[in-house]
Amino acid sequence: MEVVHTIRELQRLADAERSAGQRLALVPTMGALHDGHLSLVREGRKRADRVWLTIFVNPTQFNDPKDLAVYPRTLEEDLAKCEAAGVDVVFAPNAKEMVPEGSQTRVEVGELGLPLCGGTRPGHFSGVTTIVSKLFLAAKPHVAVFGEKDYQQLAILRRMARDLNFDVEVVGGKTVREADGVALSSRNVNLHPEARRQAPVLVRALEAAQRAVASGERDSRAIVQLVRREIDKAPLARIDYAELRDPDSLGLAPAELAGPALLALAVHFHPPQDGDGASVRLIDNRVLYP
Amino acid sequence: MEVVHTIRELQRLADAERSAGQRLALVPTMGALHDGHLSLVREGRKRADRVWLTIFVNPTQFNDPKDLAVYPRTLEEDLAKCEAAGVDVVFAPNAKEMVPEGSQTRVEVGELGLPLCGGTRPGHFSGVTTIVSKLFLAAKPHVAVFGEKDYQQLAILRRMARDLNFDVEVVGGKTVREADGVALSSRNVNLHPEARRQAPVLVRALEAAQRAVASGERDSRAIVQLVRREIDKAPLARIDYAELRDPDSLGLAPAELAGPALLALAVHFHPPQDGDGASVRLIDNRVLYP
Repeated sequence: MEVVHTIRELQRLADAERSAGQRLALVPTMGALHDGHLSLVREGRKRADRVWLTIFVNPTQFNDPKDLAVYPRTLEEDLAKCEAAGVDVVFAPNAKEMVPEGSQTRVEVGELGLPLCGGTRPGHFSGVTTIVSKLFLAAKPHVAVFGEKDYQQLAILRRMARDLNFDVEVVGGKTVREADGVALSSRNVNLHPEARRQAPVLVRALEAAQRAVASGERDSRAIVQLVRREIDKAPLARIDYAELRDPDSLGLAPAELAGPALLALAVHFHPPQDGDGASVRLIDNRVLYP
Repeated sequence: MEVVHTIRELQRLADAERSAGQRLALVPTMGALHDGHLSLVREGRKRADRVWLTIFVNPTQFNDPKDLAVYPRTLEEDLAKCEAAGVDVVFAPNAKEMVPEGSQTRVEVGELGLPLCGGTRPGHFSGVTTIVSKLFLAAKPHVAVFGEKDYQQLAILRRMARDLNFDVEVVGGKTVREADGVALSSRNVNLHPEARRQAPVLVRALEAAQRAVASGERDSRAIVQLVRREIDKAPLARIDYAELRDPDSLGLAPAELAGPALLALAVHFHPPQDGDGASVRLIDNRVLYP
């Protein structure tokens, strides 16, 4: 496994692999790798001859400096996991390499970036699309794999790739969950143990909604109310958003569901009153099929 | 010479050429080709094995719908000129291919896009950078050539390429002029004959400024006043802007020139009171060396 730190070197490697007819899959990450990331590596392996993984904690996508400060950084362990997972190249640039002084170009996706995380994390997606553009242009992959847990991000990156003519197939990888249903996330380690115990409330809310839809519920407001009630059972949970959206346009779902609808959740988990640590924001989602 | 209309086909051609070790130069144009464009083709030829030229009148970079409506379109003649100039591939997509319905991604350069044409043509450069990004990703060139007449555009595209890690060398081509000094521009044909006779006032103003600097003038305000007086000698000319700027940052030049300064001009030429036709906006520039 090769570890590359500069864009120039990565581009030369990409040119050499492409000229040799090798198909490249890219898995962009912010490190702190868990089994969710490794399942994206396996997804890439299915679709390409080489799997490259990038590790870059993108400062421009953090709207909250506290969140950036506590975001876990575990490069040594990450490299060991990549090696074990058969990753061919890890690209681990520093901030100066990825965002040199004087940088002033941004890539912005319009309407898809407005609701949900776009509404409550201003500038977040613009940071994501700008950095992912830079990673695509540095690594020149044929395929790129992103987790479905970040549903809106995946939709935005698909749109971006199509709109700008990136010759990159953007692929989603299934959300990987803990035994208790909590979606794997690098932020889970920052949860207070008591908050971690309450975190399955997200997946329980998603499942409750799917059950309601399966039993014939079509009323969007009723479904969202059911979801909010479920989440409110967790005393440390504060809902950021809980919304039903069109799975493609991310526009609001109709009052009466007629087709698939995305149920998207973002919830802050606070430590208990006498507990240490900051609050941690978790997201999860499920497409409900009536 | 091959004429290609779809992005997909162009990308496959680019992959094949790159895999065969061929170096590609791209000359993006809006058609209505003149000797200025053809000199960019020669510039590309010096730096690459293949020269590709794109013809696309980019609707998203026209802030004025009247300007877009009268922009000359001469595809048949353009193709003949390309053939004669030894262009290898012409990419001539339609608007739906380049800006399909639902497109919502924009590429934006920050500070460099604010002054000069960015100030008087809102949205113009965002349209340019978005479409040029799409063209770069469709044609995958090693080198791209743009005219120095559009100085700010060239600076912005250089910045964009560097910021986003485009593996494309952005190269400027010298401004080509008519016998009377008027910079070649596709818009010149839209000038009323009387306005065309007055158009050399731009290059005369640039030369007068350079003479003043050569004789020791360092006062920015005095130089700009001299330039404005020169342009005002043309009764059909209305100055859009006439400014001295830092050649790299495009920030305002210092009150007292100490190094090279960009003198950038944009001037509307109106038809005479009893004449037909719309006004035509011409730009020109020169870097002054004290």
